[in-house]
Amino acid sequence: MSDCIFCAIVAGTAPASVVLDESDVLAFMDIRPFTPGHLLVVPKRHASGLAQLDPEDGAKVFAAGQRIATALRSSALPVDGVNLFLADGVAAGQEVFHVHLHVVPRTARDGFGVRANAQSPTRTVLDGTADAIRSALGSDGA
Amino acid sequence: MSDCIFCAIVAGTAPASVVLDESDVLAFMDIRPFTPGHLLVVPKRHASGLAQLDPEDGAKVFAAGQRIATALRSSALPVDGVNLFLADGVAAGQEVFHVHLHVVPRTARDGFGVRANAQSPTRTVLDGTADAIRSALGSDGA
Repeated sequence: MSDCIFCAIVAGTAPASVVLDESDVLAFMDIRPFTPGHLLVVPKRHASGLAQLDPEDGAKVFAAGQRIATALRSSALPVDGVNLFLADGVAAGQEVFHVHLHVVPRTARDGFGVRANAQSPTRTVLDGTADAIRSALGSDGA
Repeated sequence: MSDCIFCAIVAGTAPASVVLDESDVLAFMDIRPFTPGHLLVVPKRHASGLAQLDPEDGAKVFAAGQRIATALRSSALPVDGVNLFLADGVAAGQEVFHVHLHVVPRTARDGFGVRANAQSPTRTVLDGTADAIRSALGSDGA
């Protein structure tokens, strides 16, 4: 994708502070970090969203994120925990349409977090929602 | 783990609204959903955090999350986007110490989101941070 900033970073034609460079995956620092050490893991092959992403590339992105999350805890950075975060679609907050997994090092009172109005549905409601999702998966879930 | 609620769900001794049941992975509705359809994907084998998680189980958890995220968009639920979210450690908001990937269906103005005080470090600072993480990864990143 000629107009994709992450493809340009993968191609080496846009600057990035690279953390991990594997055959199918690249990890580099987010230039607008939520916390110090916040980085992104991307598949080298362009995919705008999860529906377009090769599942094998997805598995490699997660594996790199897991490996980096573990390494962060033994790094010189202050890291007491890690969040992994992925936004798929405008409604989910996706801004660059090349799949990217955020790896966010955490410390107490770092200002990062999720906000939500959590609900407490009945089991009947939860079962009905699960049924709807199982139907969309095209199987009984087994 | 005898005192782990997710192990009890995997064992079938605690109730859950199951969405997907594979050989190594189970997905079920979160009982305190951030949004309607919010569910969790867990490895069946107990792992308290990312450092303890078998990387192959991690890849399968992500693959299931990706597949469910795609299915959600074609389901009867209102879904315009999806967030994947994982909390590793108390400082990251982890509450159940059995690895779980949140799959959060999104619609406009659903009240869910991340809050952060994003910074704009210089490239020199970003490069220094990347160096520290690469060192912890035990390689030059290649």
